[in-house]
Amino acid sequence: MKGEFGFIDYIKKHFAGVAESNLVGIGDDCAVIPMGEQGDIVVTTDMLVEGVHFLRSEATPEQVGHKAAAVNFSDVAAMGATPIATFLSIALPKDAQGEWAERFVEGYAAISKQWGVPLLGGDTTGSLRDVAINVGVMGRVESGRALLRSGARVGDTIFVTGPLGDSGAGLKAMLEGTERTAEVEYLISRHHCPMPRLSEGRALGTTGLVGAMMDISDGIASDLRHILRASGVGAVVDLDLLPVSAQLEHVCSAEGWDKFALAASAGEDFELLFTAPAEIATLVDFPLYPIGRIVEGEGLEWRLGGAPIAFDKQGFTHF
Amino acid sequence: MKGEFGFIDYIKKHFAGVAESNLVGIGDDCAVIPMGEQGDIVVTTDMLVEGVHFLRSEATPEQVGHKAAAVNFSDVAAMGATPIATFLSIALPKDAQGEWAERFVEGYAAISKQWGVPLLGGDTTGSLRDVAINVGVMGRVESGRALLRSGARVGDTIFVTGPLGDSGAGLKAMLEGTERTAEVEYLISRHHCPMPRLSEGRALGTTGLVGAMMDISDGIASDLRHILRASGVGAVVDLDLLPVSAQLEHVCSAEGWDKFALAASAGEDFELLFTAPAEIATLVDFPLYPIGRIVEGEGLEWRLGGAPIAFDKQGFTHF
Repeated sequence: MKGEFGFIDYIKKHFAGVAESNLVGIGDDCAVIPMGEQGDIVVTTDMLVEGVHFLRSEATPEQVGHKAAAVNFSDVAAMGATPIATFLSIALPKDAQGEWAERFVEGYAAISKQWGVPLLGGDTTGSLRDVAINVGVMGRVESGRALLRSGARVGDTIFVTGPLGDSGAGLKAMLEGTERTAEVEYLISRHHCPMPRLSEGRALGTTGLVGAMMDISDGIASDLRHILRASGVGAVVDLDLLPVSAQLEHVCSAEGWDKFALAASAGEDFELLFTAPAEIATLVDFPLYPIGRIVEGEGLEWRLGGAPIAFDKQGFTHF
Repeated sequence: MKGEFGFIDYIKKHFAGVAESNLVGIGDDCAVIPMGEQGDIVVTTDMLVEGVHFLRSEATPEQVGHKAAAVNFSDVAAMGATPIATFLSIALPKDAQGEWAERFVEGYAAISKQWGVPLLGGDTTGSLRDVAINVGVMGRVESGRALLRSGARVGDTIFVTGPLGDSGAGLKAMLEGTERTAEVEYLISRHHCPMPRLSEGRALGTTGLVGAMMDISDGIASDLRHILRASGVGAVVDLDLLPVSAQLEHVCSAEGWDKFALAASAGEDFELLFTAPAEIATLVDFPLYPIGRIVEGEGLEWRLGGAPIAFDKQGFTHF
């Protein structure tokens, strides 16, 4: 929604003065609620609306169900936490109340079971026209160990956990009616079925080395700025270092798309973006991709072949 | 939605086998998640969709905001718990993104502040056509003290905390275009601005005498059956004892409406419905209304003037 952040500020202003002792509220991937020796509870919620977040003509019901859970699990992963319960609200117009709804549940239940997370409540209701879905997920992490956006330290390396741009390229292909080669289908599947980095988030958290962490929902060009602002630091990111899949490389070559722009700003990759000392890569058993470093100051500086490069809505352009 | 309970069963079936140790899941007013010495966490969530739950032409934005929070607070009250945080997701079509959204927040924030409950997260997004709102509320109660629907005991008195039928009569007046006398306006305001019985729920819980408790959302004719089934007991309810407001009495006389049918089945009163030994009335400082008693067996028997009376969709009819 246009002006989303302005509206959130309006909301926050109206809640000024309501007690939030020890609580991390609006502004991180999850809220954090301390529960003494039981650790910290983290909570996240996301709403998906037909016509805005998905089209019933493009995504299967199972894919919508998968993604509705996955994007919330990704927020829990970004705190270094483990999901312990989900809550599903769904508003269904008449033509989605039979098979569509049941297949949606199949997808939602499959990924929930994969991570052993029970569904503990929710709400089902009718809707005049569009499907609307809200998922809330509760997770748990050791006391004080939730990984926030505000912990980046100067000198830290900036990492991501996997290739960037696939999901955005898949969406672009759907919107532009790109020919459905096997590689294009792969990119589209990455858009419909993101895999939350829950194991990776936990493993990174237990190293004790991570400074700041979040998941990549809007693209690193936007998401990394949240970490920089919350931490009061700047960053330098090398475009040459952004991990991209062979499929993205090929499709970008064939279609004349800007792979750097897709990798940096297309969003919905749901990989983890975090900062830590470089040696963290020696402590985990999954690939990490260093893409830059945290520096003093503020703002995000892009480099290509060692030289600064400008980035705006049109993509990357040499100065 | 038609077939709501069938769909919920379908969902439950798909989650069979996912660990829920010590957890109360789908089927009570809130889920209950034990947190050791921190007590039990209760969680509830409700979705409101334009055209189904409210009309922007009938309710002010402030009223919609109030009600969205109030109906969830009522679920927390029904567990004998105290709300500690809310989470608000809202999907807004373009014509609701300015003033409507801000006034909605005013109403939501006002009732939240009244109970000192912080907003800790949520989601804002666009919508093609209809406003969709999801509110999640987390509450807390002493370990093992959450009041479930399954605790009714034979011999208990059945109580409600306030007058029944006002909200349903207000809705009926709006739908039928009833002349807006001051008394009709009062009933409509009871529909738009229900008051969650949070203080009453806590006070009742701390007596230690309550058997089963829930809030009245569908009308006692429907809601009490949930308690009876969950507890494996029956009930006798005296229509003469149902508390009704003077406004409802007058409007029903003037319009020829069945006050018993409204009080028993119109719903959305959000008073508390509970079972307890009769002496509980001597332990609290707010009015309680005994409406019947829990008996052995199953099912709900209605009485009027001491004689059994039949109730169906057409209202109450003598055998």
